[in-house]
Amino acid sequence: MTCDLDQLIQKIIEFRDKRNWAQFHNPKDLALGLSIEAAELNELFLWKKPDEADPARVREELADVLIFVLMLLEKYGLDFEKIVLEKLAANEEKYPPEKSRNSAAKYTDF
Amino acid sequence: MTCDLDQLIQKIIEFRDKRNWAQFHNPKDLALGLSIEAAELNELFLWKKPDEADPARVREELADVLIFVLMLLEKYGLDFEKIVLEKLAANEEKYPPEKSRNSAAKYTDF
Amino acid sequence: MTCDLDQLIQKIIEFRDKRNWAQFHNPKDLALGLSIEAAELNELFLWKKPDEADPARVREELADVLIFVLMLLEKYGLDFEKIVLEKLAANEEKYPPEKSRNSAAKYTDF
Amino acid sequence: MTCDLDQLIQKIIEFRDKRNWAQFHNPKDLALGLSIEAAELNELFLWKKPDEADPARVREELADVLIFVLMLLEKYGLDFEKIVLEKLAANEEKYPPEKSRNSAAKYTDF
Repeated sequence: MTCDLDQLIQKIIEFRDKRNWAQFHNPKDLALGLSIEAAELNELFLWKKPDEADPARVREELADVLIFVLMLLEKYGLDFEKIVLEKLAANEEKYPPEKSRNSAAKYTDF
Repeated sequence: MTCDLDQLIQKIIEFRDKRNWAQFHNPKDLALGLSIEAAELNELFLWKKPDEADPARVREELADVLIFVLMLLEKYGLDFEKIVLEKLAANEEKYPPEKSRNSAAKYTDF
Repeated sequence: MTCDLDQLIQKIIEFRDKRNWAQFHNPKDLALGLSIEAAELNELFLWKKPDEADPARVREELADVLIFVLMLLEKYGLDFEKIVLEKLAANEEKYPPEKSRNSAAKYTDF
Repeated sequence: MTCDLDQLIQKIIEFRDKRNWAQFHNPKDLALGLSIEAAELNELFLWKKPDEADPARVREELADVLIFVLMLLEKYGLDFEKIVLEKLAANEEKYPPEKSRNSAAKYTDF
């Protein structure tokens, strides 16, 4: 599955500009919005077993998180794939399989 | 810019399986991990003006958030583009331009 | 157990003023700091069973959250006991025992 | 201002037990609930200037955060004042005035 990120980001920008919302969308408030949506996603699991969240609502909240992620990528001119591949490479170093296999420990606690 | 999501998710799955980490990656903990990374992103803006976050660190933390988002998309079998386009359509309804233009009000406060 | 809140808040104010930090402590950043500490508390439970967090670290992170709560109470001139008792009374209305007994449902989902 | 913490916690426990909610209140979900309420507090500041949050709603959301804090203090048998004073003492070490005066830097970035 490929996805056309430019087109998605384009639609998000259009949505924003039709409402003249760029005035509110500084990076600090975008980051704040992202974490608020992340909390709404988490609320679907509160008091519940790990598999009991309503999938239809997970779908909605995950989309909300994604929209803020895309706005931040656009704001900072970042390449989605590139930054994920870089981070995975960095994580290979921080979590060598021989140390981290079967372990949930954070690398600072090795 | 297109991106090959299948390939990205493939690499994330390989990283996880090389460490046998699927045992920890239930949806509830994935959502929790996502919000923890979102907080680390927000920490880059704490006490600062909106444009003062270190872009190199924003890059890293946004990648961390994205990795959790991709793992949740994979866990729930969701299509990245599809769910974003659906949510934008729903938001068109909730935030008609005539009501929301220039306004930061949440739709529940209209 | 009673606690002398004025004295606690006094010490927090002194700590802040010795470092001339009031310049950073606007309500928005205090709220942001609170949620960042809440995420650090949550990180102690990530990937773990509910009772497996390190109690010594829970103690530290809960203290961090409390310090931000106290700073916000001071900022808004709020009475700790009063606002909790008010909220419990409001919750009595939202969650009548006959509807909420044994149920984890949010009142909006009744 | 002193406050009777035992009495407050007593009321919270009664509220919980009248609804038989202890079954849901494991530490991990209590921490999760706390961060969700912290996000609702933060939402009052989203897109706004630091002093523009509605004080009546700050009052409510701060109370929600406090209730979860008190439940976690009770769960771990922690003394409110004691853990705050300990943390302030530890912070004195991490943030010596000569290094931290007028600086928003985190101690790891000194």
